[in-house]
Amino acid sequence: MLVVMSPRALPADIERVCDEITRQGFKPLPMPGATRTAIGLLGDDAKVDWGYIEGLPGVASVLIVQKPFRQAAREWKPENTVVEIAPGVRFGEGPIPVVAGPCSVESETQILEAARAVRAAGAVALRGGAFKPRSSPYAFQGLGVRGLELLALARRETGLAIVTEAMDERGADLVAEHADCIQIGARNMQNYALLKHVGRLGRPVLLKRGLSATINDLLLSAEYILAEGNANVILCERGVRTFDSATRNMFDLTAIPVVQKLSHLPMVADPSHGTGLRGMVTPMARAAVAAGADGILVEVHPAPDQALSDGAQTLFPDQFAELVRQLRAIAAAIGRELATLPSPA
Amino acid sequence: MLVVMSPRALPADIERVCDEITRQGFKPLPMPGATRTAIGLLGDDAKVDWGYIEGLPGVASVLIVQKPFRQAAREWKPENTVVEIAPGVRFGEGPIPVVAGPCSVESETQILEAARAVRAAGAVALRGGAFKPRSSPYAFQGLGVRGLELLALARRETGLAIVTEAMDERGADLVAEHADCIQIGARNMQNYALLKHVGRLGRPVLLKRGLSATINDLLLSAEYILAEGNANVILCERGVRTFDSATRNMFDLTAIPVVQKLSHLPMVADPSHGTGLRGMVTPMARAAVAAGADGILVEVHPAPDQALSDGAQTLFPDQFAELVRQLRAIAAAIGRELATLPSPA
Amino acid sequence: MLVVMSPRALPADIERVCDEITRQGFKPLPMPGATRTAIGLLGDDAKVDWGYIEGLPGVASVLIVQKPFRQAAREWKPENTVVEIAPGVRFGEGPIPVVAGPCSVESETQILEAARAVRAAGAVALRGGAFKPRSSPYAFQGLGVRGLELLALARRETGLAIVTEAMDERGADLVAEHADCIQIGARNMQNYALLKHVGRLGRPVLLKRGLSATINDLLLSAEYILAEGNANVILCERGVRTFDSATRNMFDLTAIPVVQKLSHLPMVADPSHGTGLRGMVTPMARAAVAAGADGILVEVHPAPDQALSDGAQTLFPDQFAELVRQLRAIAAAIGRELATLPSPA
Amino acid sequence: MLVVMSPRALPADIERVCDEITRQGFKPLPMPGATRTAIGLLGDDAKVDWGYIEGLPGVASVLIVQKPFRQAAREWKPENTVVEIAPGVRFGEGPIPVVAGPCSVESETQILEAARAVRAAGAVALRGGAFKPRSSPYAFQGLGVRGLELLALARRETGLAIVTEAMDERGADLVAEHADCIQIGARNMQNYALLKHVGRLGRPVLLKRGLSATINDLLLSAEYILAEGNANVILCERGVRTFDSATRNMFDLTAIPVVQKLSHLPMVADPSHGTGLRGMVTPMARAAVAAGADGILVEVHPAPDQALSDGAQTLFPDQFAELVRQLRAIAAAIGRELATLPSPA
Repeated sequence: MLVVMSPRALPADIERVCDEITRQGFKPLPMPGATRTAIGLLGDDAKVDWGYIEGLPGVASVLIVQKPFRQAAREWKPENTVVEIAPGVRFGEGPIPVVAGPCSVESETQILEAARAVRAAGAVALRGGAFKPRSSPYAFQGLGVRGLELLALARRETGLAIVTEAMDERGADLVAEHADCIQIGARNMQNYALLKHVGRLGRPVLLKRGLSATINDLLLSAEYILAEGNANVILCERGVRTFDSATRNMFDLTAIPVVQKLSHLPMVADPSHGTGLRGMVTPMARAAVAAGADGILVEVHPAPDQALSDGAQTLFPDQFAELVRQLRAIAAAIGRELATLPSPA
Repeated sequence: MLVVMSPRALPADIERVCDEITRQGFKPLPMPGATRTAIGLLGDDAKVDWGYIEGLPGVASVLIVQKPFRQAAREWKPENTVVEIAPGVRFGEGPIPVVAGPCSVESETQILEAARAVRAAGAVALRGGAFKPRSSPYAFQGLGVRGLELLALARRETGLAIVTEAMDERGADLVAEHADCIQIGARNMQNYALLKHVGRLGRPVLLKRGLSATINDLLLSAEYILAEGNANVILCERGVRTFDSATRNMFDLTAIPVVQKLSHLPMVADPSHGTGLRGMVTPMARAAVAAGADGILVEVHPAPDQALSDGAQTLFPDQFAELVRQLRAIAAAIGRELATLPSPA
Repeated sequence: MLVVMSPRALPADIERVCDEITRQGFKPLPMPGATRTAIGLLGDDAKVDWGYIEGLPGVASVLIVQKPFRQAAREWKPENTVVEIAPGVRFGEGPIPVVAGPCSVESETQILEAARAVRAAGAVALRGGAFKPRSSPYAFQGLGVRGLELLALARRETGLAIVTEAMDERGADLVAEHADCIQIGARNMQNYALLKHVGRLGRPVLLKRGLSATINDLLLSAEYILAEGNANVILCERGVRTFDSATRNMFDLTAIPVVQKLSHLPMVADPSHGTGLRGMVTPMARAAVAAGADGILVEVHPAPDQALSDGAQTLFPDQFAELVRQLRAIAAAIGRELATLPSPA
Repeated sequence: MLVVMSPRALPADIERVCDEITRQGFKPLPMPGATRTAIGLLGDDAKVDWGYIEGLPGVASVLIVQKPFRQAAREWKPENTVVEIAPGVRFGEGPIPVVAGPCSVESETQILEAARAVRAAGAVALRGGAFKPRSSPYAFQGLGVRGLELLALARRETGLAIVTEAMDERGADLVAEHADCIQIGARNMQNYALLKHVGRLGRPVLLKRGLSATINDLLLSAEYILAEGNANVILCERGVRTFDSATRNMFDLTAIPVVQKLSHLPMVADPSHGTGLRGMVTPMARAAVAAGADGILVEVHPAPDQALSDGAQTLFPDQFAELVRQLRAIAAAIGRELATLPSPA
């Protein structure tokens, strides 16, 4: 940590900051400069109370060296964390899993058709919302528990692992009961009560980056789950909000190698939400694998033009099958491969 | 609504869109142009299923005319909604209430001192967090229920109304029991489960704009509360996240007159979070009143340099007293005045 | 400056950074921490070559303490700079000047009518574009030199000072010849060739903040002009680009007190471009004065609904007269007043 | 175009808008809705004067259907434009060119070493700045004309085509004389005087996306060059500015397929500026090729840790050679290949 004093700070101000650093158990190191003094601090500054020092008279700013997340950091655990959400469906090393399915579970026919189609094309897990966060209270909000039961049915029929979103604590309990991996959506990335709850549940969690979350924020939210003793956290880039409305979101693929450098947790990419446009899903899924993603999430629907939500960004089954073929080629080009399940039931 | 077809759309594509519009119970109005056709739609298009039409072949984009929120819109209710959180503490017309207090409730002494100081200076309500959403799981998380009890004590001692945040449903029930107005923080603005819950509680809600929420998003989140039958919603501008880190957030004061034009709900401003810098709170609070804010929220602490959170943006009591004096002058300049409580207990 | 080493930096890496700091003429101060070492630097670090050090092996990041601008900084010159663009029209202290006029100069009748109307209402300077930067090459690009001559005519008729934009070096020479203050528009804020040129011309410059310029960027661009020996620089907040399209730009009024703290240069506000909506200009102009702006720029046209550009954000003359009345009241509330010219010619 | 009237618009307001549309030579088509009327317009609405209609009484907003750029649009020219900057160095179809070289030309030794190294590794063009736009006036500004001469020397020695930036009109003339392709940097993307000038020069132009430019803005800036009769325009994604400072910029790779859909112009990617971090250049260059980029620009320096600018994002020659190997594999995976020059001189 470095405390930067104002050019008009008095000697007494500098002394007070040094005293406070000493009081907190660290060693202050004043560095007088041409126009101002800075004060370094020796020791593990993750434990320092910044707010207090920042508010002292004469302090211009506080520069923090230590990352504010700990257990999520690669310094804490140098080797990759591998999150296995179901037997053989592993994120974080080895073959790359593809997760696919409709935005929402709509009916038994729809979800079984979707599951069979994505299974046949090469997906190893099924995604589909039973609880849907929608900007408008008047939009379709999902089938709820019935949707979870249909997902469980699809798992029995196809062997696909199930990833589905929870929006509150009761929902998380239900998802934990019926599915393999609890998704926390972008809008709830900083719903700390929910993060702590899924931390305590101990089940694999797919944590999506919030619309305006920095990479640092994403890792801090993961830290909430890890701090409860649950290390089964998969992070997900799904686009952030910027000034350009040419695409629904701006898909920040650089976040993939950046997170992989900062953290040991697996980082996957969702090009469907990341772009919001069907025609962009295939090139950007290829790009995500080329950038090193530990998994891909894609929206696929048996009949996207009849989907109750997100129709415009959802692939047709044959488009998805072609996408998987292309992803296999890209994975091979970087010395990896796509994950596979045993031959279909 | 206007459906814009691609320049390469076939006549059959156009016909299919028209058929679909008819099927949904509206009247299509094709408008052939030089390079492409657009199809208008007559009727109350808030009920149209956009997703479906957007996904049809040959559709380039769908332009929505109707605002997606209804009960929050001024069209729904032309006159201002007035939210009274406690006898005489009214937001939305007449005198402008000032809400002040520390970021967190820390102790009985601290909150009582803060309450007396802000009461003496002219505040009509006390703010202070018992449940604190913090980016880091290792930061101070608030006193919880004990904090709520201390706020209730401060109310008995000073007559100030109480505004405090809830982060989950259980917390909202507790806040409803001890306080006058339930605050929903920026990070939970799209926590729809929580919005529905406070909608059902029927108590006044202060809904803060999310870090990357558009004004439209804010009004849609308010709609979640209104749709449950609770019209006591106060909106709050508290800064959004942009590319410039010169201030903690970018304080979007234009949102005040824009929301007041679009909606009948009161819109207040929080210059403490809006700027994140103590030295900016006073000029920006003045600016907020000059822009027409229906209320002001300010962080004040008896000893900001010892605050457990947000110390750097918190006013000293004497700075707050001076701020209130300046706000009175600005309010008078635009033909308004600040709200007052009966003479102190 | 603080050089933060990676947790995996070798002792030799640390040594190399120290050697390089010494080689550049400064004193290195290593600070070993719990997981990594940081290296402080004593002396005037504005002269250090960051790029080189940042690229050395084992360096994680470089934190810069010194602001990168010098002559624009308040440390360089503690008292306010006052820029007088014409006799009695002074920005930076005392009465607040209001600059008003149409987006573009369109004809002799139009500019003279506009000039007389804004003069009568209380403006002390006339704005109006002769050279117009337009996103589309097919939009009206301004009258050019003829526009400058009409502005000069309006000055003779009304006594108003003239502020008008230059888009290239030849244009700047022409503006310097006909007008009182050369405006550099948002799109050219980092056109360094143009900044240097107007620096050498020595005439007052109104420098508008770029659409995505940080406050730091704005001051660095001002530094380009100051570094050529021209201290007559007025800065201008005119809105930045963010994720919300509810208004044309996001009007960052906090930039006013922030710039005034960091720099001695005057900072004015343009609520017409800052909001892009006629109905928002008046409340946000009031807010700008309440926030401490050193001047206000407003678009006014004799007949906004016939304006060749920016009609939707332009005030009618009677709206402008009412605006000036309101600004007078706000200025009085903060102990200031609006600037005035001697009684009209 | 669709003119959306306010819910409170009077019948006379609607009539006036219809009259104005008729007066401008188009046919108005009023569509009364549940709460408001919208008015469609038949014909080529690219020629309509929006500003005027937007400013009429009772108009809430104007939705524009037609894209505001013309010659840059795919509707104007369905097949890809191929820009050949030197014999065999073609952007827009066939083999993908890699352009590489240092941020700045620093000396004869440096640029010749760089040129030979990138030539040997597989680049077909050399980049390197002779005129450098720097945020600070005190930073290294480039060697100027001497830099251009050294680039021309490197071309003679290696056969590489030369791409280098111009910052003003005189500079553009010099670049046209010495180099093969004139680069317009991000900060000058809306320097319209410069765009028109390079349009008239008729030489190939590499136009970089501005820091906060939408894709629409980028295409409009290209339109300035095309409108002067110069169709040799290569567009370049190089990262935009957002709220996250984890990387220097946010690299918007989705812009590649989006531009290729909207326009016939080639679109290349610059992962060096797009990420600002050496360790991210290789994965993101791979991602750019996987997303369909028509070329790659990379910063390479014989000794990045001694570079006078951008050292931290510049590759070592051996890293670049490895990058080219990986790009070849990715290109092959999507059925393309990298461009090559005849065997080295």
